[in-house]
Amino acid sequence: MKLPAKVRIVDVGPRDGLQNEKTLLPAAVKIELIERLADAGVAAVEATSFVSPKWVPQMADAGEVLRAVMTSPRRHAGVAYPVLTPNLQGFDSAVAAGAKEVAIFAAASESFSQKNINCSIGESLKRFQPVLARAQLLGIPVRGYVSCVAGCPYEGEVAPAQVAAVARELFVMGCYEISLGDTIGIGTPASIQRMLAACAGAVPIDYLAGHYHDTYGMAIANVYASLELGMATFDAAVAGLGGCPYAAGASGNVATEDLVHLLHGLDIETGVDMDRLLDAGSFILAHLQREPLSKAARALLAARHARH
Amino acid sequence: MKLPAKVRIVDVGPRDGLQNEKTLLPAAVKIELIERLADAGVAAVEATSFVSPKWVPQMADAGEVLRAVMTSPRRHAGVAYPVLTPNLQGFDSAVAAGAKEVAIFAAASESFSQKNINCSIGESLKRFQPVLARAQLLGIPVRGYVSCVAGCPYEGEVAPAQVAAVARELFVMGCYEISLGDTIGIGTPASIQRMLAACAGAVPIDYLAGHYHDTYGMAIANVYASLELGMATFDAAVAGLGGCPYAAGASGNVATEDLVHLLHGLDIETGVDMDRLLDAGSFILAHLQREPLSKAARALLAARHARH
Repeated sequence: MKLPAKVRIVDVGPRDGLQNEKTLLPAAVKIELIERLADAGVAAVEATSFVSPKWVPQMADAGEVLRAVMTSPRRHAGVAYPVLTPNLQGFDSAVAAGAKEVAIFAAASESFSQKNINCSIGESLKRFQPVLARAQLLGIPVRGYVSCVAGCPYEGEVAPAQVAAVARELFVMGCYEISLGDTIGIGTPASIQRMLAACAGAVPIDYLAGHYHDTYGMAIANVYASLELGMATFDAAVAGLGGCPYAAGASGNVATEDLVHLLHGLDIETGVDMDRLLDAGSFILAHLQREPLSKAARALLAARHARH
Repeated sequence: MKLPAKVRIVDVGPRDGLQNEKTLLPAAVKIELIERLADAGVAAVEATSFVSPKWVPQMADAGEVLRAVMTSPRRHAGVAYPVLTPNLQGFDSAVAAGAKEVAIFAAASESFSQKNINCSIGESLKRFQPVLARAQLLGIPVRGYVSCVAGCPYEGEVAPAQVAAVARELFVMGCYEISLGDTIGIGTPASIQRMLAACAGAVPIDYLAGHYHDTYGMAIANVYASLELGMATFDAAVAGLGGCPYAAGASGNVATEDLVHLLHGLDIETGVDMDRLLDAGSFILAHLQREPLSKAARALLAARHARH
């Protein structure tokens, strides 16, 4: 099995990573984090989320953050700065703040959909139709997320065919890429490959991305198993930001540093400069007063420290 | 590629894990840890090391620990309790304390061999000959370690052919199994597979074990890549005990909990009861006043806590 020569990395740290953080950060810190990640060379930085501040207080400054990033002289032409837009209101606010790419999210599990966004999977997809229609009119690409692709905190197992059906639906609705989220990090290489095989039968694998949480320490192995099937886009969060809301003290997103370390070790091109990535991670961790959850970051920073 | 149906796990926590710990633990704690690991169902527990207490103060009680374990009513007939014996003196002390299996260690890198045990690889192998001869006379199986199989802290890259040559030498000398140690955790699935392919050309893969450190968070992916080549024995340390002596604050051995989580997720039999394994980890961490380095342990313990 030939692994891809090149991988696109989407750093979701500023959104998926920070949204569960209790420490409310100033907008300036978030802006600096986003710019440092873009400087480090990731293909995309998910900048923020236009959700109700009632639900996610950390994202109350979404407009301010996005506007600053999109008008900054540091903005990279080659980097995408997608933002999460759960509905038309969020979409309009995002566009007003300068969004050039947005993301929507559905679940592969009915129970999770009900508990997380208060409606069935079918209803949630219907709600996204006007967002997709308006985005198409404005020429704004839409990324689609599917959560619970390897299991659900309420239902347990989720059938690969069910994941594939939701992914297919988002693709047909017009999403340019479908990010498959192992929200609770329960997947192992075998279940991830089974799920991917089903999805790749519904949506060409070039349009699929892996979004794996490292709750049980399996994410890097799951990325490797996905590379074996030809997947070439992965989401990650710098420093492993964002814990797992379903298990306090446990990890959330796979750390971008671990992902980059794996890919470079496999001679796969990412465009990422590890040193700059480590700097971006150290920057945000200093503000959160926390150690990195990334083992690669810990080891590389320890080595850097020993050199000086 | 068909993965093995069954995997043997060697928990090296009481030896490789504890030897770098600064907190000196009482023998009773080490004995209890070893017995809990055997109760949890691992195939082997590396119990201690008969080295000079001048070099490894934590192992000064090797005789006491091994004697207690080997004469305990809790001793499991099906579990091996190997101990490290660097020379004939250590071997004799180990046998006097009841050892039924021992282990010796060589390096795949000349610089590492010189810095770690003060002699060349060739000299180190020569030194082990009398140990192997006496072990053979007594019918005591000897396990061989090769360190630096994916890279050396002093030399950088280590050629797979060099690793294979040392593994072959140990095999020919009479070691019943060769454990291939990625001492600095620098391997990624591609380099590990290249190294394993070379070794499997020199020693049948059934006689090889993977001993991967998780310094950069790659160990679980490396285990998966090794399973793909048919490897079916892996070393690990409960709770990820033992940091990396070459990078303070970084991880050492892959955590047994992460390994078991991976294997069970792949429907591979291990004989290990995860709940008992978690208990063994919690027991030793309480004595070290430390959180687990194992992500699987963190997530599973958080879930257990939430249930009660």
